Amino acid sequence: MAKNLIPPVKGTRDFYPEQMAVRTWLYNTLRQVAESFGYQEWEAPILESLDLYAAKSGEELVKEQSYVFRDRAGNEITLRPELTPSLARLIAQKQQQLTFPLRWWSFGPFWRYESPQKGRTREFFQWNVDLLGVDSPEADAESVAVLATFFQRVGLTPNEVLILVNDRRLIETQYDKFGVAKEMRPAVSSWIDRRGKLTPEAWEAYGREIGLSEAQLANLKFMLDDKDLWKQSPEQVRFYKAIESLGLSRFVRFDPSIMRGLLYYTGTVFEAWEVGGEIRRSILGGGRYDNLLADVGGDPLPAVGFAMGDVVITLILEKYGLLPKDLPVYPAPVLVTVFDQDSTLASFQLGTELRQAGLKVLTYPAPDKLGKQFKYADRVGARIALVLGPDELSSGQVAVKDLRSGEQRLVKREVLVEAVETILAM
Amino acid sequence: MAKNLIPPVKGTRDFYPEQMAVRTWLYNTLRQVAESFGYQEWEAPILESLDLYAAKSGEELVKEQSYVFRDRAGNEITLRPELTPSLARLIAQKQQQLTFPLRWWSFGPFWRYESPQKGRTREFFQWNVDLLGVDSPEADAESVAVLATFFQRVGLTPNEVLILVNDRRLIETQYDKFGVAKEMRPAVSSWIDRRGKLTPEAWEAYGREIGLSEAQLANLKFMLDDKDLWKQSPEQVRFYKAIESLGLSRFVRFDPSIMRGLLYYTGTVFEAWEVGGEIRRSILGGGRYDNLLADVGGDPLPAVGFAMGDVVITLILEKYGLLPKDLPVYPAPVLVTVFDQDSTLASFQLGTELRQAGLKVLTYPAPDKLGKQFKYADRVGARIALVLGPDELSSGQVAVKDLRSGEQRLVKREVLVEAVETILAM
Repeated sequence: MAKNLIPPVKGTRDFYPEQMAVRTWLYNTLRQVAESFGYQEWEAPILESLDLYAAKSGEELVKEQSYVFRDRAGNEITLRPELTPSLARLIAQKQQQLTFPLRWWSFGPFWRYESPQKGRTREFFQWNVDLLGVDSPEADAESVAVLATFFQRVGLTPNEVLILVNDRRLIETQYDKFGVAKEMRPAVSSWIDRRGKLTPEAWEAYGREIGLSEAQLANLKFMLDDKDLWKQSPEQVRFYKAIESLGLSRFVRFDPSIMRGLLYYTGTVFEAWEVGGEIRRSILGGGRYDNLLADVGGDPLPAVGFAMGDVVITLILEKYGLLPKDLPVYPAPVLVTVFDQDSTLASFQLGTELRQAGLKVLTYPAPDKLGKQFKYADRVGARIALVLGPDELSSGQVAVKDLRSGEQRLVKREVLVEAVETILAM
Repeated sequence: MAKNLIPPVKGTRDFYPEQMAVRTWLYNTLRQVAESFGYQEWEAPILESLDLYAAKSGEELVKEQSYVFRDRAGNEITLRPELTPSLARLIAQKQQQLTFPLRWWSFGPFWRYESPQKGRTREFFQWNVDLLGVDSPEADAESVAVLATFFQRVGLTPNEVLILVNDRRLIETQYDKFGVAKEMRPAVSSWIDRRGKLTPEAWEAYGREIGLSEAQLANLKFMLDDKDLWKQSPEQVRFYKAIESLGLSRFVRFDPSIMRGLLYYTGTVFEAWEVGGEIRRSILGGGRYDNLLADVGGDPLPAVGFAMGDVVITLILEKYGLLPKDLPVYPAPVLVTVFDQDSTLASFQLGTELRQAGLKVLTYPAPDKLGKQFKYADRVGARIALVLGPDELSSGQVAVKDLRSGEQRLVKREVLVEAVETILAM
């Protein structure tokens, strides 16, 4: 790197065509999966007022991780850290006109001020998928099914990724049973959430610190290891039956330690994790949030959904060699060369002709040595170079060079498109 | 609207599925046009450091119209108001590895703190198209041709939109001739730029105010009306010849009053305007900027490009009825109904089966009266409703209801996909 370049902002990414091709492929794949379930694409603004997040996004997300600033009129603006509050706002604005059940999906940029590390950037993209207007375990199962179908579509198997599911209502009944006071529950839930991140000793000590009795500690530990706990929840029983009918059980496991941080979840919650577990970040999180609409000023409306960031999933797809090999990182398969100053415009005209026939065509923008132009064609991955010199022009022909075989032959202008398409199909 | 809804941020837009379908259609159309010329998609971060814009974006854009704030570490961050400085940064970072001529395009969000009005939002999308590494009028012509090809593709004609072209080098030679002092030139250029916005008297008075002599005033007025001035510029002469060879002359006119505000333009400049002129904002602007790479710390590199916002062009397309009539605003063509609690999972299974066959399929997420489900299918624009009750299940059939004709018939499960596809193709 030369001289004093101005660096990018920490935690952002530059998308050169190679990286952009991956992002576009991911976006298209997400679109196909979401649309196969009848979800419609929508988008919120990227700027929202801070008030929108105050209700439910959780203190850490709003106070510590959000980009908040005042605009020139003094309004407190937030670079959206998540999409669900915007979703609630849009639904509330048109609640009377919209038809429920309503299925919406989206893929766009978000920001969180965290320390950048492997699997985490400050500026990232997120896939959001939400089903609104239905309160049933079957709706929750559809949400998880969209996700599992995406995993299937990109070639991931349950050996690589799993969706771990829990139900907040189930855990609440356990808290009742163990006499965990209401006001202690947020702390207890976040203690459960941290189990995997601390040593067993440190984790137990932390449990005592937040006020758990020895009996509660023992009960909660037993609960967390009870893989059959879900059988006590009628919703969970129906959920797994629905997942089975959708043909996706092998991607899904009950896990009583899944809590999810955000305050708005009210029932089913889920996360996806890499099985190998080298990347110690969940791939995504989601769940049922039946109170959010009312909290932003709408009428009460049941809802379930999830959000998946692009960073972790892309790392996992790379790790397992599942990014497609044939991403379109080349500008165009055909280069029209420019023989000399006199024939420049004839070459331009030829380019237009071929584009009108539906081909992707580069024209070399100025006369230069043919060898240099062929080399350029090679370097940018073109398959064919066309030459239109004075001889070709006077005979109504074009020289067609197949850059893979090195073969070159003269083709009549009238059949050029056909000849080019034949080589490209080889 | 119920209760106390939190409003969107002023100058932003909500994209409900109807609006999102328009944006996606526009994005796809821009992609097709750009790729037909061999341009590759890329993207920059949305956050950039303020320093990046300091050099060349122009005082108004940076000091008055940009969203600038300090992040939690105290760094001055900008919500990008334009893409070209980011482009220069990315190119400079990899100037030795990239192959020139290089063609890049992009479509993403930008922010400017202006008063929202018809044709202007604070959060908007912009199509950027740039050709780097060539300094020739023919390269400039290619840039304009990409644009004109887009107009053609969406059905706009020169009766509706025109691309107005000028050359800063040509105007500089006129300034030399009329003895306009170097330090006066920025003010004179912005005076020229405002001609259409003031009465002739006010505009002349303003010219005297900035220090133009009577002779200079007369000379400049004559220059601005001289439709043949381009013949004095060898670059302009070559430019129009190239545009002609590209078959797009009818979209292009010389106009000596086109100046472009941004400081970085060095040669050809252009804008597109609606001919009818109800929308008093240019559709886009672009031109040659040969100094920008060196200004951000790279090696000198010639470049030409343009940026088109999504707001004005969408208004124009609406005005002329050119937005496609068949935008995909419906979630899916097929609804699988749910007959009763017992058959719910069988309906889910059917949904999965049809999706695996490549169909877009909604499943009703819980049992309900069939009449209500048919009504829902109708409201969300589905073409077919499928019923799988106990009779159908025991006989291995599915009831297929064509919602357009109202006809309903029983179809064997093995030929269901075929039967559905036949109706959808009608």
